[in-house]
Amino acid sequence: MQELIETKPSVMSSDEPDRPTQPGTFLNRQTGNSGLAPGKGDVDFPVCVVLPAGGSGERTGLLTPKQFCLLLSRPLISYTIQTFERVSWIQTIVVVVAKENMDLMADIIQRFRHTKVRVVPGGSTRHRSIRNGVLALKEDKGSTAGRPKVVIIHDAVRPFVEEDFLYKITMAARGQGAAGAIRPLVSTVIATTSEGYLDHSLERAKYRASEMPQGFAYDVIHQAYERCTEADFDFGTECLHLVLQYCSTNAKLVEGPPTLWKVTYKRDLAAAESIVKDTLSQSLCMITGGCEHARMLADTLHKAFFALQMELDIIPDLTGDNVRYLFKGWNFIQFSINDSALDTIETTFQALEAANQTLLHPVVVVWVNVSTLDGGASEPAAIMELASAAKLRNILLYGVHLQQSKDPECWERSVSKVAEMTSALIRERSPAFAGQLLQA
Amino acid sequence: MQELIETKPSVMSSDEPDRPTQPGTFLNRQTGNSGLAPGKGDVDFPVCVVLPAGGSGERTGLLTPKQFCLLLSRPLISYTIQTFERVSWIQTIVVVVAKENMDLMADIIQRFRHTKVRVVPGGSTRHRSIRNGVLALKEDKGSTAGRPKVVIIHDAVRPFVEEDFLYKITMAARGQGAAGAIRPLVSTVIATTSEGYLDHSLERAKYRASEMPQGFAYDVIHQAYERCTEADFDFGTECLHLVLQYCSTNAKLVEGPPTLWKVTYKRDLAAAESIVKDTLSQSLCMITGGCEHARMLADTLHKAFFALQMELDIIPDLTGDNVRYLFKGWNFIQFSINDSALDTIETTFQALEAANQTLLHPVVVVWVNVSTLDGGASEPAAIMELASAAKLRNILLYGVHLQQSKDPECWERSVSKVAEMTSALIRERSPAFAGQLLQA
Repeated sequence: MQELIETKPSVMSSDEPDRPTQPGTFLNRQTGNSGLAPGKGDVDFPVCVVLPAGGSGERTGLLTPKQFCLLLSRPLISYTIQTFERVSWIQTIVVVVAKENMDLMADIIQRFRHTKVRVVPGGSTRHRSIRNGVLALKEDKGSTAGRPKVVIIHDAVRPFVEEDFLYKITMAARGQGAAGAIRPLVSTVIATTSEGYLDHSLERAKYRASEMPQGFAYDVIHQAYERCTEADFDFGTECLHLVLQYCSTNAKLVEGPPTLWKVTYKRDLAAAESIVKDTLSQSLCMITGGCEHARMLADTLHKAFFALQMELDIIPDLTGDNVRYLFKGWNFIQFSINDSALDTIETTFQALEAANQTLLHPVVVVWVNVSTLDGGASEPAAIMELASAAKLRNILLYGVHLQQSKDPECWERSVSKVAEMTSALIRERSPAFAGQLLQA
Repeated sequence: MQELIETKPSVMSSDEPDRPTQPGTFLNRQTGNSGLAPGKGDVDFPVCVVLPAGGSGERTGLLTPKQFCLLLSRPLISYTIQTFERVSWIQTIVVVVAKENMDLMADIIQRFRHTKVRVVPGGSTRHRSIRNGVLALKEDKGSTAGRPKVVIIHDAVRPFVEEDFLYKITMAARGQGAAGAIRPLVSTVIATTSEGYLDHSLERAKYRASEMPQGFAYDVIHQAYERCTEADFDFGTECLHLVLQYCSTNAKLVEGPPTLWKVTYKRDLAAAESIVKDTLSQSLCMITGGCEHARMLADTLHKAFFALQMELDIIPDLTGDNVRYLFKGWNFIQFSINDSALDTIETTFQALEAANQTLLHPVVVVWVNVSTLDGGASEPAAIMELASAAKLRNILLYGVHLQQSKDPECWERSVSKVAEMTSALIRERSPAFAGQLLQA
């Protein structure tokens, strides 16, 4: 997407960023990458998570709950689980799902190799589901310390929450017994008369929207659910309200970032996918095979990708120290000259799989072939076949053919075209074009 | 985007649709297509619109206001203007912009040929800007009837409002003096103590979020702005509140659809673009040139596009009655056999331009060439050149080459591949791939 009118180039306006401030971290499997200051992230007591994802779709008829909708072939809930899984001080994530979705959830856990998750069946209302999750943690088998001290309650459809905010909520819950995320109101809130007229509008500064996550001392939320009534289970909406009423615990409210936003409508799925795609598309790595020709391209490519807001690394191969590039991103250029490079491409595929880098996101490999002779080595059928097999391994292979030119201006234009097409292939990650050989 | 996990095919969940219920109508230039029941849309008094778009970007430093951000190369505000322009009973749209954006706005109006718009300079606050707009309508030169009876106030960053909802607001404003859109609260609203603790939560059923559009009898809103104080101009947020306080007019509240949603964050731009792209991608038209071969493809293509949720029309050419297909959609297949069809493609381009169909959205033309001979007629350089020139005319030309096969299974697979790639090209509308010749 272009963001600005060409006549007025500048940066897009938004009061606060609505995506993770540490791009990429929510997509990594490694823990502890969230940029917390040293020492700040030390949580020396057990913390667990309850993730109610109990929407059975019954209330809405035929429809499938949003938490199971796919973003780049992976269900939304897997993104949310991953967010918690990579926080080193979180021990167990209890996912509460409707009985009819227990098998589906088990499949998701297995397929995307989630390790900290337990699945428990939901109840007939949101509060009953959360209670089931809380009770399942009473003797947490996954924890060395028995029941957790703090339990975080979150929504399965808010995948972009960040570690430093979870830390704030956790510490406030530990200190005060309860804590909840709040956000400024986006609209004026008005009271209506029974006939549908304006009664009065609220003073915006005094009120906040209550969001997720919320955190509770385990004993507080447990006790609140022991004491509350059937009416609370049926009609209550706010855990914060229950602990106030039944445990006299006044929740500490913590101002949260826009990334806490909840996927509600179909358009929100498109928005979430765009955030994931943007995050996957920030950098790429070119493997030259040690070819001198590639070095000649380097400067022009660097400039062209920089203009497209992508960072380019150039390495001869994926051996030795360079193995780390396998973990750094999801986008690779495999460079060759007058050569179809099928063997080298297959070697890269195997390295990516060995690094588990294809597990959560489709990896893009763009084969860029420069031909200095007329015709060149294209082998379109072989590339198509290789790409078809790669798709099953969650790798998207595309080809770009670049004809050598003696005219410097023409050459520079072609190299920029390589960058433009590569960037678009990476951004879109469209399986429909896998195996195609494009002309720069 | 795939929407569902493969193991559980079904329809996506959302409580209400968040996009126009009459897809395509918000994108058409023609008026009166919104599906209002006959007679229902008859508004026999003058109605005008004030569109505050005054954000100067000053408060956020360098940043460009969202209303000027591009969706498919067109600024968001142009979509919103278009939405009002196509409503036959709306006479004038007053756009209020910051002084430094007056020229930019004039460019937008000229480039996208908006006809009902007047631009006036904004004030230092939202209320001052709206007042400027209201005052500009006092003697509406564009209207035969002098000042309007009803003025609709809307946000430039809510592009998807529909005619039937504008009608409801207009009629309620005419009857009651004022009317405003409301939506259910998305989050629980809580009152906070001065120390940042939970005080109490509001009973959700009694409150609503106040949204846009709002409608006012002209004299009511005019009077409210004459009577209100400098403090109201500085700090007030709600026009509904002003008319209550200064004109004792109790606004009628009208429950609105989710399409009223406001583009606020960067993710919302992605969401808005996905709505526009979805709407542009619902159908396509194949021009066969009368070729019998194309008819053989028809059944398989119909089926393949249907599976991709696209409707396919097949016509021999764009003459006579078929001219109407030029206005029906933004996607065309130009079919040929053993022939590069350059002349025919150029004829289609000219017809699209003559129909003004390239003005507001990029039109996609996919040239599908079947070759029954080995090699076939591809002429990649000629297609690339034609596509480069077409881009400047807001037409995206792509090529797909289909090799004839005697093996029925292989043939069917290739034809499905044509549909899959064509659908992806149409959905993405990526300029980066224009001129490429893909292989099915």
